[in-house]
Amino acid sequence: MKIGIIGSGNVGGALGAHWAQVGHEVTFGSRNPGSDTMKQLVARAGGKASAATAADVARDNEVLLLSTPWPAARGVLASLGDLTGKILIDATNPLLPNLQGLELGNTTSAAEQVAAWAKGARVVKAFNTVGFNIMENPAFRSDKAVMFYCGDDAGAKQTVKQLTEELGFDAVDAGPLTQARVLEPFALLWISLAYGRGLGREIAFKLMRR
Amino acid sequence: MKIGIIGSGNVGGALGAHWAQVGHEVTFGSRNPGSDTMKQLVARAGGKASAATAADVARDNEVLLLSTPWPAARGVLASLGDLTGKILIDATNPLLPNLQGLELGNTTSAAEQVAAWAKGARVVKAFNTVGFNIMENPAFRSDKAVMFYCGDDAGAKQTVKQLTEELGFDAVDAGPLTQARVLEPFALLWISLAYGRGLGREIAFKLMRR
Repeated sequence: MKIGIIGSGNVGGALGAHWAQVGHEVTFGSRNPGSDTMKQLVARAGGKASAATAADVARDNEVLLLSTPWPAARGVLASLGDLTGKILIDATNPLLPNLQGLELGNTTSAAEQVAAWAKGARVVKAFNTVGFNIMENPAFRSDKAVMFYCGDDAGAKQTVKQLTEELGFDAVDAGPLTQARVLEPFALLWISLAYGRGLGREIAFKLMRR
Repeated sequence: MKIGIIGSGNVGGALGAHWAQVGHEVTFGSRNPGSDTMKQLVARAGGKASAATAADVARDNEVLLLSTPWPAARGVLASLGDLTGKILIDATNPLLPNLQGLELGNTTSAAEQVAAWAKGARVVKAFNTVGFNIMENPAFRSDKAVMFYCGDDAGAKQTVKQLTEELGFDAVDAGPLTQARVLEPFALLWISLAYGRGLGREIAFKLMRR
């Protein structure tokens, strides 16, 4: 397959090099295809890799990876010419510059609403990201399902951590209560896989570490 | 520990029963604590479980689980009296009635913006949910990291699935392009764990099935 990389930074570089190594013809887009950085990337990717301008990459490949920083995406796309029929793999995230949130979506959460309504309560978000069948039994053979919790009260979180671990979960502190903006969509991922995508309810996530 | 369950449905029932079984004193809140349903739940939970009205549960327990349906949460909280100092575990999700989205947050995504900007392109969201180091090597001993992709073009998705599996990922179709509203916050979860929470970048999720 011929694959064009629009945005040859860490993500585009890693994916493009890996795809080249498994036999695809990869072209890395760059404002300066002859730069030392691009030469090093092409060498790392091996035989079938090359570099070109983003416009050339877009014209000459039917499969394109968009892996620019989000703030650059719109301008780069506008510079590529007609993309009709191209497969465009969007690997961007609309991250705020400080990585603390997304530019799109999530400006509040159920947990923050709950905290506003339950004045004075020490609110912790937890147990919202899998179905009740997993809460009954979080064991998958020798693996534990992960359960995230978040909140602004350290003591309350310590209690929730204990209650979570006692059920057999891998309890992981996801940060302050605003992280519910992330954990609530995470629940929707589980729900959509279990029901909409037909995987059924006997699924859960493990947080792997190495 | 004394734990009160506000919302004794599937989730509240599963968690409360499990906590009772590991030795906690659990009280299930209900509009009708003497109902057959509640008697069955209390029996299932075992010796230290009981049922009471939600207001009594809130008054008599320092640790409360909020596990009502989201549309009921505000009214139930308003009925509980003063919650100052209580640990309130929020297990709700602000789901739309059809389970297809969240009432709060996520009204669009980078992927949908990209599709609007790249007129005619067959956009697939993918490779946005882990760091580039995981894209280089998605293997965790004998386990594979999961990679979700979503889009509205079946052929484009099939191509992306192949490209994902060739890298060694467990490639999972997350549905239509609007699912980027879920996958982009999922990326933020990885980022916040890796950087904000100090777990480092050598982490990834496995989708477990049983």
